[in-house]
Order: sequence, then C-alpha cells, then structure tokens
Amino acid sequence: MSVSRVLVANRGEIAVRVLNACHELGFETVLAVSDADRESLPARMADRTVCIGPARPADSYLNVGAVITAAVGTGCDALHPGYGFLAESPALAEGCAAAGIVFVGPGPEHLRRMGDKIRARQLARELGVPTLPGSERIESVDEAVELALRIGLPVIVKASAGGGGRGMKVVTDVADLPTVLAAAAAEAQAAFGDSTLYLERFVADARHVEVQLLGDRHGHVVHVGERDCSLQRRNQKVVEEAPAPGIPEPVREEIRAAAVKLAASLRYENAGTVEFLYDANTHEFYFLEMNTRIQVEHPVSEMISGIDLVGEQFRVAAGEPLRFGQDDLTFRGHAIECRITAEVAAEGFRPNAGRITRWQPPAGPNVRLDTHAYEGYLVPIHYDSLLAKLVVYGSTREEAVQRMRRSLRRFVVEGVDTTVDFLEFLVSRPEFAAGAVTTHLIADVLDDFVPVPVAAS
Amino acid sequence: MSVSRVLVANRGEIAVRVLNACHELGFETVLAVSDADRESLPARMADRTVCIGPARPADSYLNVGAVITAAVGTGCDALHPGYGFLAESPALAEGCAAAGIVFVGPGPEHLRRMGDKIRARQLARELGVPTLPGSERIESVDEAVELALRIGLPVIVKASAGGGGRGMKVVTDVADLPTVLAAAAAEAQAAFGDSTLYLERFVADARHVEVQLLGDRHGHVVHVGERDCSLQRRNQKVVEEAPAPGIPEPVREEIRAAAVKLAASLRYENAGTVEFLYDANTHEFYFLEMNTRIQVEHPVSEMISGIDLVGEQFRVAAGEPLRFGQDDLTFRGHAIECRITAEVAAEGFRPNAGRITRWQPPAGPNVRLDTHAYEGYLVPIHYDSLLAKLVVYGSTREEAVQRMRRSLRRFVVEGVDTTVDFLEFLVSRPEFAAGAVTTHLIADVLDDFVPVPVAAS
Repeated sequence: MSVSRVLVANRGEIAVRVLNACHELGFETVLAVSDADRESLPARMADRTVCIGPARPADSYLNVGAVITAAVGTGCDALHPGYGFLAESPALAEGCAAAGIVFVGPGPEHLRRMGDKIRARQLARELGVPTLPGSERIESVDEAVELALRIGLPVIVKASAGGGGRGMKVVTDVADLPTVLAAAAAEAQAAFGDSTLYLERFVADARHVEVQLLGDRHGHVVHVGERDCSLQRRNQKVVEEAPAPGIPEPVREEIRAAAVKLAASLRYENAGTVEFLYDANTHEFYFLEMNTRIQVEHPVSEMISGIDLVGEQFRVAAGEPLRFGQDDLTFRGHAIECRITAEVAAEGFRPNAGRITRWQPPAGPNVRLDTHAYEGYLVPIHYDSLLAKLVVYGSTREEAVQRMRRSLRRFVVEGVDTTVDFLEFLVSRPEFAAGAVTTHLIADVLDDFVPVPVAAS
Repeated sequence: MSVSRVLVANRGEIAVRVLNACHELGFETVLAVSDADRESLPARMADRTVCIGPARPADSYLNVGAVITAAVGTGCDALHPGYGFLAESPALAEGCAAAGIVFVGPGPEHLRRMGDKIRARQLARELGVPTLPGSERIESVDEAVELALRIGLPVIVKASAGGGGRGMKVVTDVADLPTVLAAAAAEAQAAFGDSTLYLERFVADARHVEVQLLGDRHGHVVHVGERDCSLQRRNQKVVEEAPAPGIPEPVREEIRAAAVKLAASLRYENAGTVEFLYDANTHEFYFLEMNTRIQVEHPVSEMISGIDLVGEQFRVAAGEPLRFGQDDLTFRGHAIECRITAEVAAEGFRPNAGRITRWQPPAGPNVRLDTHAYEGYLVPIHYDSLLAKLVVYGSTREEAVQRMRRSLRRFVVEGVDTTVDFLEFLVSRPEFAAGAVTTHLIADVLDDFVPVPVAAS
C-alpha cells in the first residue's frame, strides 16, 4: 500500500501542518475546502484544491460523502483527516477502505470502540487500569440520584459520545441532578446525535495528563511521553506542556505503561492519545478516554522527542513498521504550547471574527508557530476560533516558561481580539511558574486579568 | 556584571538571531546599522537603531571607534559582535572592557592568541594535538621551496591572520611557489593587514570537521558535538551538518576531546570552535585553527543538542557558570544547514544584488529558517551574499537529507538569483546521500549542474 497523492480533509493550522508533512514525504496534495476557505493559506500551499460545499461545517467538512467523493474524484490514494470534524468518524474510515484509499488514522473498529466512552472505560477496567468511581450508563434520573449519593458529591455528568467538553456538567447538589441531566442529554444529542450519559466522581484538584501513542499494524505500540493539558477554559485546552510537571517519576512510568497496555491490547494503529485524570493531592490517576487521532497539542511531544508525529502517521498508515522501539526514544528539555484564539478572554472567551490588519509573530530557534493566519487574513465566523499555536522549547521548564512569556509579549496582532494578552498574563502567574496547573486555575485567576486594549488599526 | 541593554554590532541574519535571543532574555536592544541597513528587518526588530556610518563596511561595521561610541552613547552594558566584521577583533573587546561594557565573546588575550594561526598551531602541538606537517612561518621563498619538497607536494599556502579562505592557495608544482607566495602575501595584506604566510601538507580527500565549544569564566569547558563543514566553494562553507557523518566513534570522541583540551588549557570563555582537517582515507585528523566567536553554522549544533548557543553566550559573558556539564548534554538525530546566497552558481558563484520580488520559504516543525530577507527586500551590494540559512532536523541523516531536498524544492525566490536550485542539486547527489562529503565535492559536480532559470517577476 503505497501513498502518492493525499487528500487533506481539514482546514486551518492542522491543514498547514499536514500539507508540510506531505511535501516533505514527497506526496502530491489535494486540499478539500469549503467555500469560505477557497483562498486560505493551506489552499495556496496545496497542489490543488477541491471544494466540498458551503461554509457551514455540516455542509462541507462534516459531509462524509462529499469528502470521499473529493478524494476519489482527484485520484487520491490516501486521506488525512486532521483533528475535529470527521477525524474520529468510523463512516469516513469505512468509506476510505471501500474506495481503496488509505485512511491516515486507526481502523473503523478502533474508532468505534474508543468513540464509545462507556465501552472504553470497560476495557480500561478489564485491563486493571484505574477508572473513576461512577456509573456505566444512566438509565433513569432515580438511578442517577442514588448513584451520585453513593459515590459522593460533587459528581460530573458526561456524554458517552462526548469530546471537547460538550455535554459535561458538574453537580454539587443532588437536587440539581434532574435539570442537569435533561440539559446535558439535550446538548449531547445536538452535538453528537447521541444523548447517552454517564456519571463520575468529580476530582477537585484535577490535572489532565495524556499519553501520546504510536502503533503500527505489526503490533508495535510505543509512547512518546505524556503531556499536561490541565489549563482549560469551557473544558477546552488552552495551554499544554510536555513532560507533565510535578509527577513523581514512578507514577509517570505507571501512567505511560497503562496507556501502552491499553493500546497494545487493541493492537492499536496510528497516532492516539490516552487521557487520564490526575489527582494532584493523592498522585492517583484514572483513565478518562482515548482519542483516536492526532491532537491539537501534539507539537509539545514532537519538541521533546524529536519525533515527527504526523510523518509517522503516514508511514504506519502505509503499512510500514515503526522505525523505532521504546528504547530508541529519548526525551529532552521542556516544551509549552499556547493556543492563540480569536476570542475576548475578559468576556468569557467570546469568539470574534474580522480581518487581521497586523500580524507579527515572535520567532527564533526554539520558537515554533503552527498557524494558517497572516496579515490580511479574514478570520471566518464559521469555524473554531484557533488562530495559531505558539510552541516553545527550553532546556528546563523554567527556561521554556520564560521563553513563552517573552514570546507572547512580542506577539503583535491587530484587527481582531485574541487571547495573546490573556495567555501572557496566565503564563506569568506564580501558580504556572510553580507548575501548579489544575483544571480550575484559569477560572481562579480570570478575575485578576486586566485586558490590554487592542490597538486601533 | 548584569546585562540589561545590548548593542548588536552586526547585520543580516545573525543580527536577527541575536536580537531574538536578547528579546527572550529580556534585554533591551540597540542595533548598530550602516546607512544601507536603516530599514532592514533587524532594524525593525530592535528597540532602537543607531547609525554608525556609510554603507561601506570599513566606514561602519568595521569601525571600532564608531561601534564603541554607539554602545556608550545609547547606554548599552553589553555588546554582541555576531560573526565576521569585528567579531574577532581584540581592539573591540578591549574597547568594551575600557568602557565597562560586557563583550559577548572571549577576552582580548584569547582573540589575539587564537587569531594568530601560527601561535595557535604551536599550542596544539604543545598539547599533543596533531597538526599537519608544515612550516612555522615562511621567512623566504627559498625556505618555502625547501620545505615544500620535504613535506611533499601538493602543499597549501595559508595566511597566518587568515580566515574565510582568503590568502589560501594550493601548490602542486614547486616552480609555481614564488608567484603563489607573492599573490597570497598581497591578498593577506589586503584582507587582514598582515602578509605573514605559512605552509602545510595538502590533503586530497579532506573533510572539514569542527567542534563546538562553550566555556565559562569558572574554568568549565564543554563541547556541543562536532559539525562537518566540508562542502565549500571558494573555500567558503555551503552546507554543514551535525553530527559529522562517516567518522568511527572512537575517532569522533578523540576529536571532541582534543578540542576540549585545547580550550581548557586556555581557560577559554564563551562560544568557540576548533577546526580540524579530517583525512577520509586514513581517519587521521589535524588541528587547523580555532574560531573565537559564534559561527554561521551554529544552528545545526543547536538542533541536535537542544542548546541555545547564543543564549548561553550571554549567560557566560555575564559571569554565570555554565548551567550544564558534559554529561548533561545529549545529542539526538541529525541536522543539516544550507547557506542560501544571492549568487549565480553556474557563473562561479558570482554575487548579485537586487530586489526580492517573491519570497516563499518552506516551513514546518523540523525546518528552521534564519534570515533577514523578506518579499520586497533590496539585497544590498555592499555585504556578504548570505540571504538565509535553511536548517532541517531529522531522526536520521537519511530523513534530514530528504527533508532538505524537499524543503529546497519548495523554496520560491524571485527577483534575484540565489543558490537554492544549486543546493537542491547538490543535496540530491548520490555522493551527498552517501555522506561522502569532501572539500572538493562541489568542484567535482559543478559541471553537471543545469541551473533553473529564475522566473520573470
């Protein structure tokens, strides 16, 4: 199974990232674009583009038929789905297989198995990987109330088909449970077409730690270290780093081994991530879910390992065995990523759109910028507000934190509001410098943030 | 001795590199510019600029008095000289000391000691580091002829104060020696103000291998690996890589140890490089010279080591001890740099100038571009023709070679002739893929190169 022409079925910075990998591997490229993205930076990078529909995601980037048709019609022999949109769609993976196109990701059975969060938790338990005390599947409000009282409040309600924080609600008073369940079910139904919910113990000083994995079809699975992704707003990640700070080494090894065990039990193929909730007080960890795709925050793992994760995705998808074993991988230094979004932090991270009139990002040898933005770019209203990922490397965490702070200070964007100033505030907080990253840190400090007014342009 | 405001006494890509390091370290920056560079990219990056004279280097970038005056007049407490120009000038280092300004480089005594290539060779011999059979100092033509016959032809004539290939001539017939000596003396006098020459055995299948060093004022010296810089045209480097290919591991360790021994014997401070001639047939190596500054090709060492060499220069110049010992340093993967110059390769690398009308460099996670060029930049006629350094990293040399080839293919420059197409040709040669890099490879293959005509713009 050899690859020569790739359909990139995504947009924004990840389309740029995947196109760069394709160019380096010598593949021809076709980019699937919506009407709104015809003139985008990745559209100019690709060898050709094919329009798959109107701006609205449901009519283009989420349309399995349109994407497969585009791949077949342009003679592509591989398809990279990026993240989000259809990246974890078994239907897309199956459609590719039926059309004889290499899907750059795991097989449909792995997408389906891990896409069902309740079945994924079952697998973890079977393998002896800790999970949070909680339910299998909420069948009734009464059952949920009884369970919440048994595992102890607060609890968190989650959507079985969930991801990206949608359908997640914390409940501190059992009297709120009926209302919360109804709202979460409706949100889950709207977002994923599946209203199934489950319920777990809510950990107060929680961190989000996830392990990067790579597997091939010959049964090899390696981890590429772990990341801390605790800093979130509206349950979406804002700052990520590798390695995860403040974890005792034996626990770090246990977490990595648990993730490898899970993936190996499935003979998992391609890039994937096992997410854990880490209790900063007890140093216990609990399986949360597995993401069966490349993740937004993959660059921090690339920087500490030297591994080109997207390039490896293509290699294993083409059937090659992994070119390295676990012992060949070394981790060095510290990397931090900040997601720069077109949002107003002081107004609850309200997304905004418009034309970028000035774009002067920082640069330098240990600074990486993954972006599709440029001076003159019109940020469309239809999509995710991510404009750029600023990633820095340092020999030590302290050096990386300092480099990130200074790099954000030099980052000039005008024309649209971005989170650059908020991120500079955040990474300058003493809690961040101390590595005391928890999922509630952003909410804790947000009131102290005084935004810098965007310059008139 | 603390640093807060830095005069960057250079131009082009190294000014950009140093300014980035300053910004990350939190220093204010002043850039010394000639009239021709008032609107340059580094001029726009610096907090302020100060004009030190007309375009002609002798009237500006080589004017010690003007540079010191600029530093004092703008209240700078440190000065970074970059490479070239006054980087190895004992007078500049002494002037800084007299003005109470931290010179980001070694002390004047090291600049002077190693600037004298004959004394440097003496030191190497005293320490038991091999040197090429040759003379100390040519006092007369008769003596030179006798010596050339004794060590065997061909021999190479070199300038004691030399660097950058100027004053170097290979002699294959002893009858040519009188003419060659006269020409070399004149060239050395013009370039360095010193006509002293010496003479060495000329090695046919020679490689240029150099070891990157860092020293602090507390007596610590570490190496940051070695580089191969064999690919040269007109005795100037074109492609560099780290680690050096094709060296047996015990010899690699010997070379590194010899360099450290030399620098340690001097209690050498700051960044420096010991250059060796490596005989690809016998695996013997010979001390050539020491460069007492940051070098053009430092990024390849940064990529395999994760060390920020320019940042470390500032730290040790401020008196801090090195933050790592030799055992803390690890080397991973392979890095290659191509120097992209505004030159016509097919016409003997004739420099050219003009306005860049299109500038689309490659990008991606393992691709680094150090440059001061941009779309619309007017390449001045007064200076070195270096436009950009394209540096790539790969897990293996093979991966790095492939990435470099593909990155060069994607590099679009219009308006001026550059060496991009020649470099793509060069790194695609089977000799390069095989690591058979020698100082004569470019001359050997140049006739096979068919240039791609520059697109009309």
